[in-house]
Formats: sequence, C-alpha cells, structure tokens
Amino acid sequence: MTKKAEIGVIGMAVMGKNLALNIERNGHTVAIYNRTDARTKKVVEDHPDKNLVASYDLSDFVASIEQPRRIILMVQAGAGTDSVIDQLLPLLAQGDILIDGGNTFFEDTIRRSKKLDASGINFIGMGVSGGELGALNGPSMMPGGQKSAYDQLADIFEQMAAKADDGKPCVTYVGPNGAGHYVKMIHNGIEYGDMELIAETYNILRNLLGLSVEECAEVFKTWDQGELKSYLIEITADILTRKDDLGSGTPIVDLIVDEAANKGTGKWSSENALELGVPQSVITESVYARYISFLKSERVAASKQLSGPKVEPVSEDEKKELIDLLEKSLYFSKVMSYAQGFEQIKTASDHYDWNINYGDMAKIWRSGCIIRAEFLQNITDAFTRNPDLKNLLLDPYFKNIADQYQDSLRKVVSIAIKAGIPVPVLAAGITYYDSYRSAVLPANLIQAQRDYFGAHTYQRVDREGTFHYPWYPEQ
Amino acid sequence: MTKKAEIGVIGMAVMGKNLALNIERNGHTVAIYNRTDARTKKVVEDHPDKNLVASYDLSDFVASIEQPRRIILMVQAGAGTDSVIDQLLPLLAQGDILIDGGNTFFEDTIRRSKKLDASGINFIGMGVSGGELGALNGPSMMPGGQKSAYDQLADIFEQMAAKADDGKPCVTYVGPNGAGHYVKMIHNGIEYGDMELIAETYNILRNLLGLSVEECAEVFKTWDQGELKSYLIEITADILTRKDDLGSGTPIVDLIVDEAANKGTGKWSSENALELGVPQSVITESVYARYISFLKSERVAASKQLSGPKVEPVSEDEKKELIDLLEKSLYFSKVMSYAQGFEQIKTASDHYDWNINYGDMAKIWRSGCIIRAEFLQNITDAFTRNPDLKNLLLDPYFKNIADQYQDSLRKVVSIAIKAGIPVPVLAAGITYYDSYRSAVLPANLIQAQRDYFGAHTYQRVDREGTFHYPWYPEQ
Repeated sequence: MTKKAEIGVIGMAVMGKNLALNIERNGHTVAIYNRTDARTKKVVEDHPDKNLVASYDLSDFVASIEQPRRIILMVQAGAGTDSVIDQLLPLLAQGDILIDGGNTFFEDTIRRSKKLDASGINFIGMGVSGGELGALNGPSMMPGGQKSAYDQLADIFEQMAAKADDGKPCVTYVGPNGAGHYVKMIHNGIEYGDMELIAETYNILRNLLGLSVEECAEVFKTWDQGELKSYLIEITADILTRKDDLGSGTPIVDLIVDEAANKGTGKWSSENALELGVPQSVITESVYARYISFLKSERVAASKQLSGPKVEPVSEDEKKELIDLLEKSLYFSKVMSYAQGFEQIKTASDHYDWNINYGDMAKIWRSGCIIRAEFLQNITDAFTRNPDLKNLLLDPYFKNIADQYQDSLRKVVSIAIKAGIPVPVLAAGITYYDSYRSAVLPANLIQAQRDYFGAHTYQRVDREGTFHYPWYPEQ
Repeated sequence: MTKKAEIGVIGMAVMGKNLALNIERNGHTVAIYNRTDARTKKVVEDHPDKNLVASYDLSDFVASIEQPRRIILMVQAGAGTDSVIDQLLPLLAQGDILIDGGNTFFEDTIRRSKKLDASGINFIGMGVSGGELGALNGPSMMPGGQKSAYDQLADIFEQMAAKADDGKPCVTYVGPNGAGHYVKMIHNGIEYGDMELIAETYNILRNLLGLSVEECAEVFKTWDQGELKSYLIEITADILTRKDDLGSGTPIVDLIVDEAANKGTGKWSSENALELGVPQSVITESVYARYISFLKSERVAASKQLSGPKVEPVSEDEKKELIDLLEKSLYFSKVMSYAQGFEQIKTASDHYDWNINYGDMAKIWRSGCIIRAEFLQNITDAFTRNPDLKNLLLDPYFKNIADQYQDSLRKVVSIAIKAGIPVPVLAAGITYYDSYRSAVLPANLIQAQRDYFGAHTYQRVDREGTFHYPWYPEQ
C-alpha cells in the first residue's frame, strides 16, 4: 500500500459503511476501521473492487490517511464517541480534522470542541439525515465547527450529499461548534411533527371517514402529487399498500403495535425550546403523542371505562369534502411546525452565537433527509425574499396559505374534537396560529394573579416602569 | 440570654421572616440570622415582643439553638444555598437538621443530600407554597429527606402549616432526598395550568361573549361558589373588580402588559416530564403560552398581517348557555391537568425510588397553597378509595365528571377555534382525554414509518418478538 487514503471512516455499522462507499463512489480512496475486526473484513469482502484501505489497528488506520487527516467517526453517540476520541488524540497531528457524524447531543459537541481546541485538532459535529439509503446514495448533511476545517471538507461533502432539484448539494457550513448537531436536532423534532400530523390525519380518514387502509393509501398517493409531495407522504402511501409479510393478508399497519418509540432527539429539541423560551408546541405535542402511545395497557384499560361521543357515519359527499379539508389542514399545520422550528433555530443562533443562515437550512433539507419535501423550496424562497424573516407566517407565500387554509384546519380540528378523535398536534397548530396573531393575550390576567399572590410586579401599557398593585390596602 | 432557641431561620427576606413569625406564634423561640445585619435588626425592631433570638454572626446563631439543631434556610435558591451550607457545615454537629425551604430544583436537593450524608448532617428539602401570607399564616409544606429527621420536625411543621377543612395540617412527609422539592415543582406546574385555563376562559368571556371586565368578575364570583371554588378563582374575581390604582378609572387588568413572566419551576416540571416520558401536555402548553405572551412585539406586528375569522356577536340566550359550558369545560380541563400531574408524580416516585403516597399530596394541597381548592378534596377522596389509582380519570367521581362535562369542553374548544380565540391549553385538555381513552392510536403508522426509513423494527399485535418488514425486497 503506497497510496494514502484521502479520508477515513471509523465505525463500519451500516451508516459508517454506507458513507464510506458513498465517498469511494465519488472517486476517493477511503481508509476504514472498526473496533471489532469482523465488520471491517466483511466490508472488504463484500466490496473487493472498491478503493478501501482497511486497517485493524488504530495507529495503522491513522497512518494510512494523508495529512492533514480527515476522519469521520460513525460510532455510537455518547461514551463511545469520547472513547474513540481519547484513543485517537495521541495519534493525530495539529491541523487534522475529526468529524463526528453521529446523532450526538449538541452540548456534547460543544464540550468536545472545547477539549479538542486545546490540542489543535479541528472538530466538526455533523448531523446526517437520510437513513441507511441516504448515507449510501446522498444524505442531507449539517456540519458545524471551524469554518477553515469545513473548507477542507467542502468538496468531498458536496459530492457525497444529495442534490436538490436545482442541482445544489444538500450540505453547507452551519456554524461553529455544536451548530450542526443542533440543526439536526431541530430537523428531527420537525420530523416528529410531520409524522404525527400524518398519523392524526390518517386516524381521521380511518375512524371518522371510515376509509379502508387501501383507500387511505390512495388518498396519500394523490396528495403526494400535490403540494404535500414529500418523502414521508410517499412512504406513508407505500406502507398502507403493504400486506402482512407473514402471509395473513391483513395490511401490515394493522398488525403493528401502536407504541411509537423514540431515540431522544425530539425530546432534546423540546427540552431546549423550554430552556430558550421558544413556544415549540407542535413538536412537543408530537413527543408527548409518542409517550402516550407507550401507555398501551393503561389506554386499553381506559378505553373500556371512559366514554366518548358517538361517531356518526359520514356520507360520500361529505367524505370528498373532508378529504379536501384534511389535505389543506395537514399542509397548514406543517407550516406552523416549521415556523416554530425556524423560530427556535433563530433564537438558538443568537443564544449560542452561531450566526446561522436560516434560509440555508431549508435549502439543505430539500433533498436527502427524512423531511425532504416540495414544501422546503417554499421555505427556501421565503428566506431568500427576506433573510431576516422573523416568522415563516409573515412571508407573503405562507401568509397566503394561512388566509386560504386556516378555515380547513379550524374545521378539521373542531370535527375531530367533537367526534372524540385525538388531534393533539393539529390542535396545537391552530392554537399556535391564533396565539401568535393575538396583539393582546390574557397573559395580563396571569401577571395580575402573580402580582396578587407573589408580589411579582408587572409592566403597564401606558407608562414605563415596574408596578405592584395595592391588592391588600390594609397591610 | 440563657434559654436556647428551639429552631433557627436563616434569611430574613419576607418569606423567611414570615415563617419565623409563624413558628414563634405557635409558641416557640426562634433564632434568626441574615447575611446582612440590617434585615435582622428591622425584624427585631418591628417585632419587639416576640421570642426571637437575633444573631449577627453565624457561629453565634448556631450556638443559640438547642441540639440537635433545626435550621431552616430561606435564602436565594442556587449558589446562595450552597454557600450558606458550606459556611454552616463546620459549625454543625452530627444529627443536626438543615431544612432548605427555598424554591430549589429537586436535583440540587438530591446532590446536597448526598454531600451532607457524608458529614452526618440531616437534610430536608422542603417546598413551601402560599406566598408571603401563606408563610405567615399557614403555608402548604412539602418536606423530603430522612424520615427520622422529619419526625423531629413534624410537631412544629404541623403547627405552622395551613389546616384543611377537616382540621388536618397541610404538611406530611413526602419521601427521601429531593421528593419534597419535586412535588413542589409539580405543584407549580399545575399552578401554571390552572392560571392559563382561567386566562383562556376569561379571554373567551371577554372576546367571544363580549362581556365587560366587571361582568367577567361577576361570572368568576359565581363560579367561586360552585365546584370551581378555589383560591385562584377567588382572586381572579377580585382582580377583575379592581380599578387602576393610579386613578384612570380603567380596570387594572386592561393596563397590565400581557407578558406573563415565569421563575422556571413550570419549565422544570415540563423538562422533567419529557425526561421521564410522561405526557404532560397541559402544563407544557401553559409554559409555552407564557413564552408566546413574551413575543409581544412579534405578536403586535403579526396581528396586523395575519387574518382570522370574524367573531359573530353572541345573543343573550347563547351567552347564558356558553357561560354554563365554560364553567364545566374549565372544571373538566383542570381534571386533565391534575391527572397528568399525578401521573408524573407516580412515574417520578418509581423512577427516583421515593415511594410517595400520591393521595397525601392532594391532602396537603387542600389549603395554604396557591392551587388550594375544593377540587383537591375530590382528588384526596379518589386516592383514599384507591391508593394505587393509575390515573385520576379512572376514579368513579372523575369518570362521572368526564361523562357529564366532556361535551362542554368539546363545544368550547370548537367554538373558540372557529372564532379564532387561542385555546392551547383547553385544547390540550380534550386531546389528552381522547388520546388516553384510545385503545388504538395511529402510532402503528409511525412505527411503520420508523421501520421503513430507519429499520427501527416494531412489535406485532399477534405474536411475540421484534420484527422488521421487507420494505425493499430487492436489497
């Protein structure tokens, strides 16, 4: 082996392996390493004709890469990442670049950034979305860290990344230290919101309109040709056509236990919203919807005891009208979810001093990632029109959507609530809209209460200063 | 000074001073100390005939208390508490009891507990609710720590505490280490929920029914004679009768800026719910409602651009009917908030190994604290009937409320959403109810999506095991 690898990948589980193959396909020699030898051997065996340089010792691996070294870590987030970094540190030289491509909590990335700064090693924390196939064929990539380090990676990353319809790669420099993993966290929160909105809409189609699974598949298929066109709508339509792989003939969805698991990124995004003071109700209700789904035995018991309204059968004419309302309400509630997500990125960018270009985030989500959708082009356009846009709803395109579609969302939520069908996230969408457009909220009463029982003071609308009312004149 | 004090209080801001006066009124000699002398002197001057032993040096203060010493800290939560503890430690003897009565985050209490354990000092973390007047006249107290230490405080605490209608003191042993401060945190979260539910209801009265502030006051006054009877309803009615103290004649509520502040306890309770996997949507939406209230300038700008439905005037007959619906919907949505809060305490009790008696928590909230209400007696009764009750909604009394009142809440939320009046928390109440009573949620579709794009696997309803569907047979 005389030729050195241009870049290395540590971790040969499916994501690491697929990223390595993606880089290699783009004309680069890739060094690979895995903690256990078997995985590395398997990759080499399965891909004998690829330019992969396999090492079975970490020093050999590091030595096989040209300097300054570029090494992507695709290992288990958490202690696993710290351990690999500790092992690598004595083997690296100043100016080398470590890239953590795992689903890492952004505060860990900030911590590791600081630690590595001291040793002169560059550190890029990079969110990667798109699942296994995305990693292989082109993911959406969200790298944060030193800009100068990113510049040394940009060519390869742009080759690896998915391409949007306009040919632009779905990767860009996000910002310093934890910015990349932060944006990936918000991406995942939005993903929770999109999935739950689809699930609630599906539930209405099934249980209020009385559609069969097959009929629901047709509805989502049709929607995937309209403005809802997106990866998640597409796979929903596909899922709903699939029958039991074990041969019962039943649609597979009806055989899957309704307990939605999570790997924590949605929760992180909500905890961070609470920390930063951002009203992120849509995503948070989506997280809670997964939690309540997990109370399966409690729900089954409760369903036998707690009453609900009778669901009246819906006529064929009403069905058509309702399907149209549902399409619009799903689209408009998505707008609210993204409006909150972008408001959170904006707040975080100021809070952590990241100077994130919000519009670019929509750009790099247009393809490759789980939330990819036609819709992201509209967000991209909105931020192009006004890079300082305070809230998506204030952009002319989205304002027009609000004008046209709010009535559909209002009707859908009202009908579902009257019929007893749970719509926590659709409802959070419309109540957010109405809160956000309220010049005056009844929070003045809350401030009065706080001043009454806790002397917490308040501001007045008609003069400057801080005031306390003499609620108890006798004192 | 020959007689030693039976107990000491550090921190002579209003809460500490009032607690000291409360203890003294109950026949005890109380040692007092404050970091700065002026406050202590003022207390002594203002109360020359009280059995207070003032010290201006921490060693003198400690020496003035009989052993084993009982010392209540009423200092600023956070670093202030750690600093006082560090100064006290060398002055204390094994078996002494420190009580932190501040609004401390429960994880800090757990940490301090561990630290003090090593030095043989007992540590009680105690939530105190009721504001300044409660501290003086009888608060609700939520102490956690060593049971043996609590037993040495029980007599004094029971004298100090508010008394419920049945004469029972509003204090009990909550559980080990952070349990007391934890329960206080949930109390505060529930308080956020109660306040926001009242605010949303008030907003509907004002802006949908078109009632004047004075008419709203009458409505709340009437409600305070029914099953909603509670401190917060009472002060709401009172607040709404108050005119500008600066003489304009305008109701004071209309002059208060609608930005609801917070001191973090609601946020903590939501973050913890996210951490523990508890669907705490009602309280969390209340926290977010405060956050969105703080986006005042954004809201004012948005109100000029974003459209909403026209609010049709409501006839006198409809008004009466709507007020009745609102009373029931407020009560029923409170049930949901408390159901979630108690579910969270239950989950936390298991998670942190606290063995909390849930029913006792309702008991000690019946009087003294901000959320005190007739309603708490119903919760007390529910847990008396069944100490292992999984969810309040499953108790016969609350199940009956659900049967009778759900229709009111459904109607109120639908009407408000159609009229464009923001009801994030009322809506969260009814969507929680419908989610909780759903034997099957569309989370099966979410699990299918997760398996489709991330091979996250799923469970089946018809057989044991973990399954992955061959979504891509070609692979």
